[in-house]
Amino acid sequence: MARTEISEYGEFGLIKHLTEGIKPMQPSTKKGIGDDCAVMDFGTKKVLMTTDMLLEGIHFNLEYVPLKHLGYKAAVVNFSDIYAMNGTPTQITVSLGISKRFSVEDIEALYSGIRLACERYGVDLVGGDTCASMTGLTISITCLGTAAAKDIVYRNGAKLNDLICVSGNLGTAYMGLQLLERERLANAEQPDFAGKEYLLERQLKPEARRDILESLRKAGVKPTAMLDVSDGLSSELLHICTQSGVGCCVYEDKLPIDYEAAALAEEMNLNIVTCALNGGEDYELLFTCSLDDYEKLIPVDDLYIIGHITKPEYGCNLIGRNGEELPLKAQGWNAFQS
Amino acid sequence: MARTEISEYGEFGLIKHLTEGIKPMQPSTKKGIGDDCAVMDFGTKKVLMTTDMLLEGIHFNLEYVPLKHLGYKAAVVNFSDIYAMNGTPTQITVSLGISKRFSVEDIEALYSGIRLACERYGVDLVGGDTCASMTGLTISITCLGTAAAKDIVYRNGAKLNDLICVSGNLGTAYMGLQLLERERLANAEQPDFAGKEYLLERQLKPEARRDILESLRKAGVKPTAMLDVSDGLSSELLHICTQSGVGCCVYEDKLPIDYEAAALAEEMNLNIVTCALNGGEDYELLFTCSLDDYEKLIPVDDLYIIGHITKPEYGCNLIGRNGEELPLKAQGWNAFQS
Repeated sequence: MARTEISEYGEFGLIKHLTEGIKPMQPSTKKGIGDDCAVMDFGTKKVLMTTDMLLEGIHFNLEYVPLKHLGYKAAVVNFSDIYAMNGTPTQITVSLGISKRFSVEDIEALYSGIRLACERYGVDLVGGDTCASMTGLTISITCLGTAAAKDIVYRNGAKLNDLICVSGNLGTAYMGLQLLERERLANAEQPDFAGKEYLLERQLKPEARRDILESLRKAGVKPTAMLDVSDGLSSELLHICTQSGVGCCVYEDKLPIDYEAAALAEEMNLNIVTCALNGGEDYELLFTCSLDDYEKLIPVDDLYIIGHITKPEYGCNLIGRNGEELPLKAQGWNAFQS
Repeated sequence: MARTEISEYGEFGLIKHLTEGIKPMQPSTKKGIGDDCAVMDFGTKKVLMTTDMLLEGIHFNLEYVPLKHLGYKAAVVNFSDIYAMNGTPTQITVSLGISKRFSVEDIEALYSGIRLACERYGVDLVGGDTCASMTGLTISITCLGTAAAKDIVYRNGAKLNDLICVSGNLGTAYMGLQLLERERLANAEQPDFAGKEYLLERQLKPEARRDILESLRKAGVKPTAMLDVSDGLSSELLHICTQSGVGCCVYEDKLPIDYEAAALAEEMNLNIVTCALNGGEDYELLFTCSLDDYEKLIPVDDLYIIGHITKPEYGCNLIGRNGEELPLKAQGWNAFQS
């Protein structure tokens, strides 16, 4: 039998390959695979559903990630997927695979983080599965959410001349990870995080940008396409452009960069723009909206217009500080690669 | 910091411990933790949600479980949880953690089993997450289902004098596993499964008993309490009795036992009644219903009345062939035990 290595496909390629040709059969299924969430219709409101799996050694390293933070993050990244559809997260189930290395206190700490996230975001933990594992810790969370049909924002609605906006800042979570890795390798008795607490927080305890959705609602702006930045800006912009059948143009000097992150990048000889484009795990909202909404966007706090949607033949490009055009590439993150 | 071993709690104890005091906040949450499924209300129908995680080396051994069967089973056990609430499964999400040992063809085989199960049961695969793992294969599936509010059957509705019924037969999946293990240890070039195909099928490719629910609907019987037998009859009966605040009495000579399973048990020096009580993975439906439904139950195919509900002070007992009373114990399956 032929053997194709999973690394040849990569994460997205494999999912696409495996789910090709799957067609919904249930009348209640309004949207299946291909966005942040599935969408179901069971009555007056649409139900959104999303799921995320975190594996020890791949997604987290317990040498520097406290279990409570890990639980918090595992829940929040799911909420972020629901917000990225302009929905409200309502319920989660939590499945854990736990090796003998872990004590009850360890799992309590993990759960306390999950529960804290649920409390803060008003989400119910409604079930799950807890089982032994041979090695390490596995966390799989599924989240449901609701939205009125007219409010849901997919990835495929970006139109020519739409503005491209992003919340918060980019590359910061990645710099937090670099910092943790550096201190781990330095193996110092007391890691030196002074003045860099914000970077750590972005990596260890990200928040979902519910506040941005509220601001947009108040401002009367409905995005035309939206997702959350989990794999890096380049990769997410390519998702929007591919699914909307458009091109895009974003400007290097418009990318929101945190100054602590920039300082650390310089210290570590990293290009902060590359980190912003490909770093991932920022969980900021990236969306497009009509040019007509420009005036309404200006007063919205912590939101940045970074470019605009173009014709598809233009492609997806970054305009550098000197006006040079650089095609965006989905470097993303491919843990299947050896 | 104190260290309590997870084995001291066991599977159910740990879940109970971790979820103690969690209260639903969303008005749409009608039932959270504590049954086969969570129940949500989003409009005209109730939405059911359940999740199951399978880990290599704990729940399956790929030395003798074909990946396609594994995928089929991983989906069906979730459907079984929805049927056990008297609902209809409608959507699943599938999360996979995959080590480098696996090829694309391997994962295709796994997915083909999942997709076959979805087709047979009319369920939509609506999303998921696929990621690399350091070791082995992890499968986490979450299933949604729907039911009219008046149709949902919980675990806590059993009443004094209710009949206790079970579908199919018990202990057969466990004997299938014993057979697979025996042949694996014998390490013969060609394992000897002749005449025992049914046992293998029960272990490797179980079905969810949708047919029984249809029969009950036609017969005009609505169970008062129900669940699916995943951890063994004893453990499941104790769930019903604890949550309903009743006792029970089941009869050894009424337990439905498959003759192939009984023959193999004798051959392997195992007590088939113990296997039926504690074996697990049969995915049969166990339910209680009013004594008034007795006449309606008789014509239902593949359904067996094995006992009745008693006052709580009687406890939960098995009446042996010689009239002796044996208290039921949740031996279940505790993979956390060393």
